[in-house]
Amino acid sequence: MSDEIEIPESHPRYQSLLTRHRIEAGVEKGITSKQGLIAQGRGEAFDYLIGERTTESAEQAERVAAAHLLLADSPVLSVNGNVAALVPGEIVELAKATGAEIEVNLFNRTEERMEAIAEHLREHGAEEVKGLTADGRIPGLDHERAKVDADGIGNADVVLVPLEDGDRAEALGEMDKTELVIDLNPMSRSAQVASVPIVDNVIRAVPNMTDHARDLAAEPNSTLEGIIEEFDPEAALSAAEDAIRSGDME
Amino acid sequence: MSDEIEIPESHPRYQSLLTRHRIEAGVEKGITSKQGLIAQGRGEAFDYLIGERTTESAEQAERVAAAHLLLADSPVLSVNGNVAALVPGEIVELAKATGAEIEVNLFNRTEERMEAIAEHLREHGAEEVKGLTADGRIPGLDHERAKVDADGIGNADVVLVPLEDGDRAEALGEMDKTELVIDLNPMSRSAQVASVPIVDNVIRAVPNMTDHARDLAAEPNSTLEGIIEEFDPEAALSAAEDAIRSGDME
Repeated sequence: MSDEIEIPESHPRYQSLLTRHRIEAGVEKGITSKQGLIAQGRGEAFDYLIGERTTESAEQAERVAAAHLLLADSPVLSVNGNVAALVPGEIVELAKATGAEIEVNLFNRTEERMEAIAEHLREHGAEEVKGLTADGRIPGLDHERAKVDADGIGNADVVLVPLEDGDRAEALGEMDKTELVIDLNPMSRSAQVASVPIVDNVIRAVPNMTDHARDLAAEPNSTLEGIIEEFDPEAALSAAEDAIRSGDME
Repeated sequence: MSDEIEIPESHPRYQSLLTRHRIEAGVEKGITSKQGLIAQGRGEAFDYLIGERTTESAEQAERVAAAHLLLADSPVLSVNGNVAALVPGEIVELAKATGAEIEVNLFNRTEERMEAIAEHLREHGAEEVKGLTADGRIPGLDHERAKVDADGIGNADVVLVPLEDGDRAEALGEMDKTELVIDLNPMSRSAQVASVPIVDNVIRAVPNMTDHARDLAAEPNSTLEGIIEEFDPEAALSAAEDAIRSGDME
């Protein structure tokens, strides 16, 4: 099963059909777990309520997140099963546009899934995929949940964690790292503890961040710092909650 | 893997853990499909926004649905993979309390899943399980999607369809049957076309309906008819939308 589908991008349900197709292909490849499928459904419901669009507030958060990645010394993009299934090529593009490392980081870690995901990312152009060494630990988590690469997430100053579990998002935040979170539920703990919460579908958010990174690449650090300073995570979460709670019913 | 879990009902996350456990057991038994897992996640998100509780409006709809089942000549409870995984014993109890038939009715119909679900229901006390004959059709649907038992859903005057696909809910509604729908998304087509939309978690709704059926069993038909006449499906949908859109954020 290929990652692509044979319908035009102009089709009104293109994004939804592509998402569904990639998730199912992810199951076949051993990338997407049972928990991942349930999480996908939760995301679909929130996206439906938001209107299956990138809100103005999310677009701004994506620009801020791009600025963080460009300014970072050691940025890392953390990839789990759903992220790998949904946006493998898009993550590779974002890594290239920002100079970030890619690290596979699973809540339900098995060697088979780690390898399947790393291989899937390589098929989509990733040159180096971290996460298999697992010689570092996130403090405050169980042994298996805590594993990271010492020279990857362990050493990172800025980490993008799309669709992350709340416990781990919280523990990462306490490590004095700047945490960029993509999560469609603004009330989730992951979104609440983020330095930059991006309340958007990962399938829209990651390419948008790449566009912003390319757009900002030539700017001086002072401009990037200005973009970051203006950002208010509380306001971004409130705007997302408003979109969910007061969106059109149809 | 048993259907039960070894934690006390007083545990704050009892319902959520039981649900998760039953769905995973359903996957192992070949009852729950990939689409079923995604649908489960969508339901979880809506239930979270509703506050993981039965609203007053949903409780009323459950009473009305019980009255419909008691008054019906040929009531049928339609069971798909998620319903069988989540509430197998509870569906059998409701069937006994209302004199309804149980029919397995799948969107993605395969003989293996039909048999696995029928067997699962029998293990939970079902004496007769319809749906395997498939000698009837719902007009307006593709051949595979349309299959029902002629003396089951085909002949029913009242059908309970929990977690039903929109196309099929619509086609069933056009067959001049009274359709009782359980769906956590009040904006879904299934909920919109129902005679009685029940916007509640199936794990709460089905036992509640059984309680109401037992409570109403000795009432004269005129009382049941009165309960049904007072019900306004539009008002029930509006109340559910309000609960989702204006519920507490925490």
